Amino acid sequence: MNRLDELKKIIDSYNDFAVVSHTSPDGDSMGSILSLYNLLLDLNKNVDVFVEGQAPNKFSFLNGFYNIKNVNQFNNKYECLFVLDCGDEDRLGDCKELIEKADIIVNIDHHITNTNFGNINLVDSKASSVGEMLYEIYANLDFNITRIIAECLYTSIVSDTGGFKFSNTSSKTMKIIANLIDTGINFTNIYYRIIDLKTLNGIKLMSKVTSTLKTYLDGKVATIKLTKQMLEECEATEDEAGELVNIARDIENVEVGILIKEIDLDTYKISFRSKDYFDVKDIALKYGGGGHIKAAGCTIKNKKIDEIESEIINEIKKLG
Amino acid sequence: MNRLDELKKIIDSYNDFAVVSHTSPDGDSMGSILSLYNLLLDLNKNVDVFVEGQAPNKFSFLNGFYNIKNVNQFNNKYECLFVLDCGDEDRLGDCKELIEKADIIVNIDHHITNTNFGNINLVDSKASSVGEMLYEIYANLDFNITRIIAECLYTSIVSDTGGFKFSNTSSKTMKIIANLIDTGINFTNIYYRIIDLKTLNGIKLMSKVTSTLKTYLDGKVATIKLTKQMLEECEATEDEAGELVNIARDIENVEVGILIKEIDLDTYKISFRSKDYFDVKDIALKYGGGGHIKAAGCTIKNKKIDEIESEIINEIKKLG
Repeated sequence: MNRLDELKKIIDSYNDFAVVSHTSPDGDSMGSILSLYNLLLDLNKNVDVFVEGQAPNKFSFLNGFYNIKNVNQFNNKYECLFVLDCGDEDRLGDCKELIEKADIIVNIDHHITNTNFGNINLVDSKASSVGEMLYEIYANLDFNITRIIAECLYTSIVSDTGGFKFSNTSSKTMKIIANLIDTGINFTNIYYRIIDLKTLNGIKLMSKVTSTLKTYLDGKVATIKLTKQMLEECEATEDEAGELVNIARDIENVEVGILIKEIDLDTYKISFRSKDYFDVKDIALKYGGGGHIKAAGCTIKNKKIDEIESEIINEIKKLG
Repeated sequence: MNRLDELKKIIDSYNDFAVVSHTSPDGDSMGSILSLYNLLLDLNKNVDVFVEGQAPNKFSFLNGFYNIKNVNQFNNKYECLFVLDCGDEDRLGDCKELIEKADIIVNIDHHITNTNFGNINLVDSKASSVGEMLYEIYANLDFNITRIIAECLYTSIVSDTGGFKFSNTSSKTMKIIANLIDTGINFTNIYYRIIDLKTLNGIKLMSKVTSTLKTYLDGKVATIKLTKQMLEECEATEDEAGELVNIARDIENVEVGILIKEIDLDTYKISFRSKDYFDVKDIALKYGGGGHIKAAGCTIKNKKIDEIESEIINEIKKLG
């Protein structure tokens, strides 16, 4: 019996399900767990869906969001636990306890590092998202993909592909999106909520950080700076402003974008991003850091921010 | 004979083609004309492709870009002129002269206002882009959509759909994108160049404009300001920073985003955008402007910028 048939048998024969994903759930986690929650409800099953802590309000438009339970609402026993978008059991945080409470664990994931901790493991590292995998599973098992379920799956896929721009997007991904659009979902609204909407404090922080923008070496290098004071003034988390270092790299003619971030007194974390040809790993290595050709980082201590900036520019000049 | 058969006959029987689009060409224009240029070359035809003025360098990665001719390089005669993504002849600017030089005009467009000025008119206002229409035409006529042509068509479609987020994106659009991806194009690179890449001056301007961000009425209204001085200091055009007023609207919990833009001494153009329910046309009308429910604008003279801001906020308070 192949794994899809096993899955079908489990869904057909069991009645009490729990669904969970990793801690600090992202769009793929939220879309995946709520798609499965809605599907199991449609099949008249008992199903609890869990998030450790507060589920991000950004996803409150998804059906089932307000039925999400937290870690003090576990039943004593579930016939089957679905763990979605989670490479190993420890990433479940306090929800890890569910593993002990379930007869059968179904692990559906797209992380290449997945430890196959389930009784049934469906792991496809080529899938853009677990949402994409679930679409295929639901379609193969002839489950009805309602508009409500399609909203969840679109949310998953648009999140993990960065709005269909990352290289994990495949022609299969786009065909699935076509089918989801055909269910009548308001995809422009979902795209807007997931990709375009920003927090007030995030915009304030982005404004402050970009006001420090400087370019060097004929505009080939751009630096931006993030201080602790900026974070405090904006009451923002760094994440809220998006991938700040990308703002520097994504400027026309810039090859290397650099973010100098204050961590502590005279301690800075430097992030490097290159666009086409410059190997930023080389410069990160010089300072005891590491990374890849196009994304690298290091930490520099006991120096002032301006000193660090001019030193780095000089190093790039030497390397370039 | 249907229009597609007529088109097939023209392409089969003629040898000298010209291809053109509207002035100030955008991504759909550039992708469309270069896709057809490359296709006609593949069919061993003589073909000239024209842009009035300088073709935007942003599209220089497309094959054929450096073969684009300008208005002083017209031949005396073409057997057939293709006019793409152009609602009427006047939008051709100086390239309008080509109309007189061609035996047959083929007009392929998706503007609902198209005047059907061609001898053959293929106009589909439901198509996201002319690139989408051309894909279907090429596929229906069994032309080989090479990777090079696919790059052009992806550029068209990703441009006119804003990265597949606008409501003109359909399931058909996504299926076409799936097929274009299957030709092996580096779509992440094209997406990056078309959607994510910003100019240095544009980022500087965006930073300055967002530094003026203020919120009112429990965060439901956000204002940003753009002065002539900012434009001068950044040496930027307003377009370079993207749709600035959207930055104000696209903040969590904001219902109305407002851009107050200095036009002249004590003269300001006000742009309003709403998110879900507030009718911004009402407030624009109060000041002699106009627009739609979610996008409106007006001009206010003989007042200081701060005075205008507080007046508008008061008006919104009254209306809301």
